[in-house]
Amino acid sequence: MEQDQSRSEKPGHPPAQAMLHELRTAENSAAHVLPTLQSMKASNPQVKLLDVGAGSGTISVSFAQLIPDGHVTGVDLNANILPRARAVAEKAGVQNIDFQQGDVSKPPFADESFDMTFCHQVLIHIGKPWDALREMLRVTKRGGVVAAREGDYETECVWPELPGLRKFHTLMAGAMSAGGGTPTAGRQLVSWALKAGGGSVERSQITLSYSTSSYRTASERQTCAQGLCDQLRGGSLRAKALKFGLGTEDELEEMAKAWEEWAKRDDASLAMLHGEILVQK
Amino acid sequence: MEQDQSRSEKPGHPPAQAMLHELRTAENSAAHVLPTLQSMKASNPQVKLLDVGAGSGTISVSFAQLIPDGHVTGVDLNANILPRARAVAEKAGVQNIDFQQGDVSKPPFADESFDMTFCHQVLIHIGKPWDALREMLRVTKRGGVVAAREGDYETECVWPELPGLRKFHTLMAGAMSAGGGTPTAGRQLVSWALKAGGGSVERSQITLSYSTSSYRTASERQTCAQGLCDQLRGGSLRAKALKFGLGTEDELEEMAKAWEEWAKRDDASLAMLHGEILVQK
Repeated sequence: MEQDQSRSEKPGHPPAQAMLHELRTAENSAAHVLPTLQSMKASNPQVKLLDVGAGSGTISVSFAQLIPDGHVTGVDLNANILPRARAVAEKAGVQNIDFQQGDVSKPPFADESFDMTFCHQVLIHIGKPWDALREMLRVTKRGGVVAAREGDYETECVWPELPGLRKFHTLMAGAMSAGGGTPTAGRQLVSWALKAGGGSVERSQITLSYSTSSYRTASERQTCAQGLCDQLRGGSLRAKALKFGLGTEDELEEMAKAWEEWAKRDDASLAMLHGEILVQK
Repeated sequence: MEQDQSRSEKPGHPPAQAMLHELRTAENSAAHVLPTLQSMKASNPQVKLLDVGAGSGTISVSFAQLIPDGHVTGVDLNANILPRARAVAEKAGVQNIDFQQGDVSKPPFADESFDMTFCHQVLIHIGKPWDALREMLRVTKRGGVVAAREGDYETECVWPELPGLRKFHTLMAGAMSAGGGTPTAGRQLVSWALKAGGGSVERSQITLSYSTSSYRTASERQTCAQGLCDQLRGGSLRAKALKFGLGTEDELEEMAKAWEEWAKRDDASLAMLHGEILVQK
């Protein structure tokens, strides 16, 4: 749930804290994009897609599988994640893809380079997300589409409501805000796209939708809790929490224990709303 | 968004405050049920379905259209809504349906009468929702399914965050609680189903999912705002707010004006998570 900027690991072995990110595919995390991508492919099989903030690249790779005659470029600010993304592509046997280091606020591409420019759980973590959207518009061809899907963390819906989970929610929202992010990103996407356009994007060019992500079954809860516990006990979230005074070591351990208890509870689940936009350029 | 218990109107002319309820269909409000209903129909076209808290009957009628050789029974606590539900069915040309007055906590049917027993936005409004689920289980045949979809009002996600809309959220949650309801119903459905079963329902018999409802386009926002303004200016919500001291007349008017402003804003939207369960008996 946290866009991790500090992963540094062996390509073949992601840390557990990246496991949650690596469950993401185009099908489960970019469903709102797929009909448009299919239409693009029908009129031009050589679709060029840019995935900004690609991380471990699981979404990028599944995009590449959907456009076998096209090409996907994944960029991430963190150069250390690129070997892992390349390993994910290689394992999937996907060759119409490349990964590069790059900043979402200054993507290293010429104007109008891509048919579709996509990001997932990126704008929620950065200051001035409209500047990033403006750059995404810049590198997108006229007639192309800029697409985003961002969580709305204030809609996080967890049961049972254990005290440690409430503290975790406050910690996560605090960590996002401390990094310049916006926990209510999902609901603000249209507002940001209009601001990015600076008058050149009309509301009629934007399609807004909402979807959910959730952990409901015993095995989903186990995976989720493991990933979050690893972030609380050793990951970048822990470092950020301690750095910004968002929680003590004891509190982080209380949160981890609460997630472990949650995972074992038959009636437990976790869900969240995500906002989704398609901007027709 | 409020289950209205006090509607009393001419069958052909629903008040605007019921308009939001009448947008509901099986397709948009019971999608999690449809694959199971199709399977039931394939093995037995004469499926018997009970819709508890059917209100104006728009969901019941669309269920009836999906099982033309089956039968739908809609019950509602409020006898005054039944003529409207019958008018909705008649207008749709649906005959395999009947509507009766009945209490969700004591549905007037023998044990094991229905193949599927369904409710939508009912459990969120009542005390001891597990008792209602236990009764739904009772009237459902062995091998049948109890299904529910309930909002989780604490996940309400609105933009822009106008002060009047924040007050409205507090009012609605307060009105639900004052009536014995549970604003966080959506996340508690599995817990309630297990409690209803009293040991006879295992977690493995329950399928949990989450979905969204939202108002995003200009015309959707207009419909939504109109319905909510009518409830604030003259409906049962107003009566309840004033009765329980949840808002003054001036505050209710401030909320209505905020919804009117919201409807006009290009970047505005409203979304919410809903919990959904299927319980295999």
